[in-house]
Amino acid sequence: MVNVRIYVTYKESVFDPQGDTIKNAIHALGHDEVENVKVGKFFDVVINPEKKDVETSVKEISEELLVNFNLETYRYEVLGGLD
Amino acid sequence: MVNVRIYVTYKESVFDPQGDTIKNAIHALGHDEVENVKVGKFFDVVINPEKKDVETSVKEISEELLVNFNLETYRYEVLGGLD
Repeated sequence: MVNVRIYVTYKESVFDPQGDTIKNAIHALGHDEVENVKVGKFFDVVINPEKKDVETSVKEISEELLVNFNLETYRYEVLGGLD
Repeated sequence: MVNVRIYVTYKESVFDPQGDTIKNAIHALGHDEVENVKVGKFFDVVINPEKKDVETSVKEISEELLVNFNLETYRYEVLGGLD
């Protein structure tokens, strides 16, 4: 088994109101050392490489399900094999 | 400026219904190579290290705001310095 982490973030051109809200809350707590906050999500996906090529699988499930390409972009990294 | 990524995940003992729902949706699309899915979120935080020690800042904002320690845990990594 292969453990893959897929990161989904807003595109640079998309306004991130959740990140701005969190930044404001952090400032309200007195942390003026924080200059910016952006929010994203990730999916830790365990893939059986004997059933499908890992890169192909990640590309397909990202494009079909996980990522809204109007607003979001993604990248992934292989975290390592599992027993 | 220092760019830090803070990862927030459910604790191992906490049921992740969103991950299970996504796994089921992936299977419904025919991807039976996917064995498991877990969901998490991350925060890309830009910190001014001249105003506060980065490790202290991350610990404080995580504990005060970003992480619900009843259900979640966190880790972070420094992605690098920014100009």
